[in-house]
Formats: sequence, structure tokens, C-alpha cells
Amino acid sequence: TIDGARLWDSIMEMAKIGPGVAGGNNRQTVTDADGEGRELFQSWCEAAGLTMGLDQMGNMFARREGTDPEALPVYVGSHLDTQPTGGKYDGVLGVLGGLEVIRTLNDLNIRTKHPIVVTNFSNEEGTRFAPPMLASGVFAGIHDQDWAYARTDAEGKTFGAELERIGWKGEEQVGARKMHAFFELHIEQGPILEAKGKDIGVVTHGQGLSWTQITVTGKESHTGSTPMPMRRNAGLAMARILEKVDAIAWARQPHALGAAGHIEVYPNSRNVIPGKAVFTVDLRSPDLAQIEEMEAEVRTAAQEICERMGLEVTFEKVGGFDPVTFDEGCVAAVRNAAERLGYSHMPIISGAGHDACWINRVAPTAMIMCPCVDGLSHNEAEEITPDWAKKGADVLFHAVVETAEI
Amino acid sequence: TIDGARLWDSIMEMAKIGPGVAGGNNRQTVTDADGEGRELFQSWCEAAGLTMGLDQMGNMFARREGTDPEALPVYVGSHLDTQPTGGKYDGVLGVLGGLEVIRTLNDLNIRTKHPIVVTNFSNEEGTRFAPPMLASGVFAGIHDQDWAYARTDAEGKTFGAELERIGWKGEEQVGARKMHAFFELHIEQGPILEAKGKDIGVVTHGQGLSWTQITVTGKESHTGSTPMPMRRNAGLAMARILEKVDAIAWARQPHALGAAGHIEVYPNSRNVIPGKAVFTVDLRSPDLAQIEEMEAEVRTAAQEICERMGLEVTFEKVGGFDPVTFDEGCVAAVRNAAERLGYSHMPIISGAGHDACWINRVAPTAMIMCPCVDGLSHNEAEEITPDWAKKGADVLFHAVVETAEI
Ligand SMILES: NC(=O)NCCC(=O)O
Ligand SMILES: NC(=O)NCCC(=O)O
Repeated sequence: TIDGARLWDSIMEMAKIGPGVAGGNNRQTVTDADGEGRELFQSWCEAAGLTMGLDQMGNMFARREGTDPEALPVYVGSHLDTQPTGGKYDGVLGVLGGLEVIRTLNDLNIRTKHPIVVTNFSNEEGTRFAPPMLASGVFAGIHDQDWAYARTDAEGKTFGAELERIGWKGEEQVGARKMHAFFELHIEQGPILEAKGKDIGVVTHGQGLSWTQITVTGKESHTGSTPMPMRRNAGLAMARILEKVDAIAWARQPHALGAAGHIEVYPNSRNVIPGKAVFTVDLRSPDLAQIEEMEAEVRTAAQEICERMGLEVTFEKVGGFDPVTFDEGCVAAVRNAAERLGYSHMPIISGAGHDACWINRVAPTAMIMCPCVDGLSHNEAEEITPDWAKKGADVLFHAVVETAEI
Repeated sequence: TIDGARLWDSIMEMAKIGPGVAGGNNRQTVTDADGEGRELFQSWCEAAGLTMGLDQMGNMFARREGTDPEALPVYVGSHLDTQPTGGKYDGVLGVLGGLEVIRTLNDLNIRTKHPIVVTNFSNEEGTRFAPPMLASGVFAGIHDQDWAYARTDAEGKTFGAELERIGWKGEEQVGARKMHAFFELHIEQGPILEAKGKDIGVVTHGQGLSWTQITVTGKESHTGSTPMPMRRNAGLAMARILEKVDAIAWARQPHALGAAGHIEVYPNSRNVIPGKAVFTVDLRSPDLAQIEEMEAEVRTAAQEICERMGLEVTFEKVGGFDPVTFDEGCVAAVRNAAERLGYSHMPIISGAGHDACWINRVAPTAMIMCPCVDGLSHNEAEEITPDWAKKGADVLFHAVVETAEI
């Protein structure tokens, strides 16, 4: 098994970079802090004897050679970027768990047939630049690279320019690498494993996501001198649509989810009726048909509300991925590893999207989940225990070693 | 009568400073653009032979001497600051209309018994620094000056520091001046005068305002892995409260008004359930009891909604003023002037707050309104006709000359 204390120390060391305001992290993608995090990770990889590769999307690939020069590498990893008010483990556990696999192999002087590559994918979170899993999406051929470079943040900066600015745009063609398999260890970000008292989630599926950005256009006017019947209040229409989104998800329990995390009104002045509201509806389900049904219902509801209120409404799909079924062989390797180690485990569906969801399109892939306290994530208070982290990394180690063959 | 073309030219000249993005202005209070606008106004005042005074809140007072050294001055004016997406006339017409009164007196070689002072009050709009009419409020003894200096904008800058930075903090004690009377010419910002085909609104009353900033606290968590029943969605609670605010105002037609122009959610990330929502409810009515009733209903509704959803809610009153009855003598001077000039007129209640509402507490005060196209204001497309501007300034001229005595 791996060295739990060393893994934990590394996680805490990484958490010092891009500190948040409440004990978590703000190390958003392709910021200076992200650059610092990458340097620290690179220095650890070099100390572990790995060779770093860097592709044109800033994806990092730290390679440990195998004994068979013909064998494709087994990849492990996740992402080092965080939400603006993110936790210390979301993504980081998977990258540093992968590094810990290498360190343990080094300690034990084990050589595998297949090379092993520890990966850090750029912009998994998708907050600063939508959509999430941007760089693994380009790797898997889902997104065009130039389109990805052109994604803009709230200040109008592009992903491509920012990647170049922080000095982490590589030469390597994105997606050129072939993978024997890919394993991603991640915290659950939900409450199920903790509630069921299980150490390990064997992830069989990932649910799908749809992000629709809705723009409602009304008319800016004075809150004090515009009579109620003459108002064209885009903020009020947004409020009504948000209520519908909630109802549409509740009508499909227990699986479907719906909410808006991103909300803006313009000009956002206390005495101006909002002339424009822009917000993004996040809809999820393990069932693609259900996502499509909810999308259509949200659009119809928004159109009806806006028509009744004399407002314009437009829709833009700004992100999404279909539900995923992970590779049977890789899932079995994870389940076997948990079994062998005597850790309690259960099959689970990932609620969140992960780089593994895209990589699954181009290589046999599976995920390992460990519990997190109160199911809380995308919150600075996100917490896991060192024991959960160690057990997750142990399962990763065993699944990887089985797949990479000794 | 005044020179309509000269007045219009000056308005268009001022509109070049702090241009907006859609033909209007973004010349928010104590920004560099505000400083430039002040300089231009000062240069015009000096050219018209006026002496500039400047108080510690940045209020500007351009004085034309009277013939009686004992007589208190008649004040005219309004404000030069604008909304972030504001019009070219809101406030500006009143300041430059006042200057046009002086220019016309100069042309006609008329000397008045009372001095006349053209005034530009700082931060009328209240967008960058709540509350509105901040500096006239300090002048009238409503607000404490140090409290006013400490108001912060969205970036955490204070009004006091910004006033100093742009170089327009004066020495003069605020509110030390005594006024014989105060007249403010302003666009209606509502649809009534245009609909009734009247040139002049004789403003008899101003309606009251209440700004309550509401903070709802829930729990940030992942939109993909937090089951619907476990969500504590502050954005959804806000949506429900906004719907109530609308209903509470509609229940009191035709007079009461309610809306929220200012809306923020945190951390404002597409895949994070909002853990916090902050928004400001703007309630208005000419009837103080009705405002208080609505305030109480909004609080009760917000408390009920948040309790049902397991969220915290707090309230902060961030602005407000009681309904105003203007001075009978000054109102009569306005009505007489319109009569004398043969302009169509009607009594009107101001929907918006104005510096005149505070000055009314310390001096006999009245307002003159002219129509604006479609009642549209707090919008870059705000428009008036040169004829409306001229007629409003003509009435201002006659009311001021009658009050200042020849
Ligand atoms: N794991 C994670 O939080 N990914 C971001 C993409 C998503 O919103 O599901
Ligand atoms: N006239 C005007 O828009 N004043 C701002 C204060 C208010 O919101 O009424």
C-alpha cells in the first residue's frame, strides 16, 4: 500500500498555493497561482525520476518508463485547478494520488511492463472558462483546439492567451498520445459513500450535463418613475424561470438535478429595472433522454414567461456532456483492487463531470471515488479524512499495477 | 426666455465626457470622468462671471452676486453624475439649465436683489455609493459626513478617498450655507407628461423610497453531486423573494412600486449552488404608511421562504427617504411662471428621489419637470426634445427671477 502520510503532506503543500478566503483554495485555471501549482507538481515529478511532457493545451504528462518499449502507457491523474471558492481535494487528490503511486513503485523498486504517466489536465472546473473539462475534451477530440483557445473569462481574456502568459503552453500535439488505460481517483463530491459507510466508490457511470446560458432582454428603466404595468423587468423573468428549473428537476426525482449557479443582471444598479439578465441553467441526469426532456421544458417555460412579460429570450448551449459508461475491464480492476485490500466498496454513478468522462471516449477508463464529509464540494470547507485519501490511493495503486503489469 | 440652442449645445458638450456604450453616459460619481465634467462646468461658470465655492462633500456652488448684500441667495441646480448606463439629461439638464438662467441674465443685463447660485451636488445617483442624494443629504443634515465618506463601492473604495483622489474635496463646511429658496429642473423620468401632452410638470410632492439589502445565506455545493433534497440554494430563495416583491407592489396599484435592480450570487460559478445571494429591494410610494407596510411584508415573506428552505436571511436598510411635500410658495412660483409663458402644465408627483427632496428640509424648495420620450430614464437611450428642454429652462428662469427679485 501507499504512504498515506506522504500523500497527505503533498496535498497540504499544494493547498498553500492559491489559498482561498475560508481555508480552501482559489487556484483557478491558467492564473499565476495555477502556474505555481504546476511548478510544484513538476518539481515533485522530477524528484521522482519522471520525464515531463506538455501539450498545446497545457496538459502535463509525467512519465515513468516501463520494461516493454512497445507497450502503451497506463495513465493516471485528474486536475490541479480549483473553483474560485474551492476545496483542497477536488482534482488534487487524483493528481497527487497518481504521483504517490509512482513514489510507492519507486520505494518498492517495482518496474511495470507498461509505462505509467501521471497527468494534470488544464481547466477541468470550467468556471473561469466554460465548458468544464476543456483540455481533456480537446484531447479526446470533442472540442476544436482553436475554439478552446478562444474561450473567454468574465474580463474578456482568452484561455489561449492566458495559457501562454503563464508559460505553460507546450509544443506537443493534443490527443496524439495513445493510452493503454486511464484511471482517475476523485472525491465523490456527494453524500452517498459517507451515508452508506463505504470507503470506496467503484464508478460505473457518469451522469450527463447540459449548460444552457439564457439571456433575457427587457428594458432598463427607472425603478422610481416607471409604472408597474410599463416595466419590462428581465430580473423578474429570470426569477420566474429559476423557479421553473427547480420544479422541472423535482418532477424527476431521485435522479435529475437542476439549478443556476451563474446569475448576472445589467446594469446591476439599485434604481434601474434590469434591462438584461444572463444566467446558466445546469441540468443533470444519468439518462440522456431525461436531460433532453428537461432542456426542452426549460426553454418552453422561459419562452412562455418572457412572451407573457413582453421580453426577448435567447438560449446558448455553453457546455455539456452525455452520460458515460466506463470500461468494464477497468471498472473490474478497481473493484478487484478494493476487494483484495479488504476495503468496503459499492458501485456508484458520478454526479459531476470529470476528465475521465472524456478520456473514456479514447481509452479504456475507470474512476475510483472516496467519501467526502457531508458530501460537500465546490466549497472551501470541502473535507476528507487522511484515511479515506489513503484507501482511495491504495485502490488506485493496485488497479494501476494490475493494469500496467509487473 | 432663455437661449434654447445654447442650452442644448452645452448639454451635448457635457455628454462627450464619460460616454456610454450606447449613446448615453457613464460618468459615475467621483470617477475621473466626473472630475472632467466638473472642470468643464467650472470653466463655463467662470466664463459667465461666477465665483465657485466647493464644500467638503464636493458640492459645487457657482455664485452670481445680488444687489442686496444682506439677501440670501436663490439656489438652482441638480447633479452631473450619471448611472453606469445613464442618459444625457438626468441631472445635467438641471445644472446646465441653471447656468443658462445666469447666461440669460447676463445677456439681458439684469441684476437680481438676491444672489443666484448654480449648484452641482455630488453622488445623486447612488449607484456606485448607496444611498442616492448622498451629498445633498449631508448638506441637509440627514447623513453624518464621516459616514458618507465611508460609503464603499463594489471594489471597496470609499466615497471620501475617491473624492480626494479626483481633487474635488473642498474646504467649506457642508450645510453652512443658508438658502432663500432652491429650484431644481429635472426630466420626469416617467411617462405621464408625454402621455398627457403637457410641457411642464409642476412638482407638488415626491414619493418616498426604501432600499433594503437582503442577504440570503445557504450552502455552496456542487450542482452535479448534491441531491435536490440536500440543496440550500440561496439563489432560488432570492428568486422566490423577487416574485413576492413584485406581487406586494402590484397589490397596491396604481401608486406603489417594487423591484430589485441589484442582484449578486456567490461564488457565481456555473457548477456551484449559490451559497449566498445579496440583492436590494427598491420600494416606493407617495404614502409613507404604504412603504412601511410593504417593507414589513417583504421581510415576512423573505423570512418565511428562507425558513422553509433552511436558509438564513438578514436585512439592511441601505437607503431611503420619506415622501416630500414641496414648499407652497416655490411651487406657486413655478406654476405662475408656466402660466405666464403660456406653457401647458399639470401638477405631478416625482417618482424618483432628487437633491431637492433633501434640500426641501432646510429651505423652501420646488421642482420643475419636463417630459422625456417614452418615460425612459436610467437608460442610455433616455431622450428629450430641445423644445422640452427650452420650455423647462424658461420656467426655471421665470421662477428664479420672480423669487430672486429684480
Ligand atoms: N468534478 C467537478 O467538479 N467537475 C466540474 C464539472 C462539473 O460541473 O461536473
Ligand atoms: N433622479 C434620480 O434618478 N435619482 C436617483 C434616486 C432615485 O433612485 O430615485
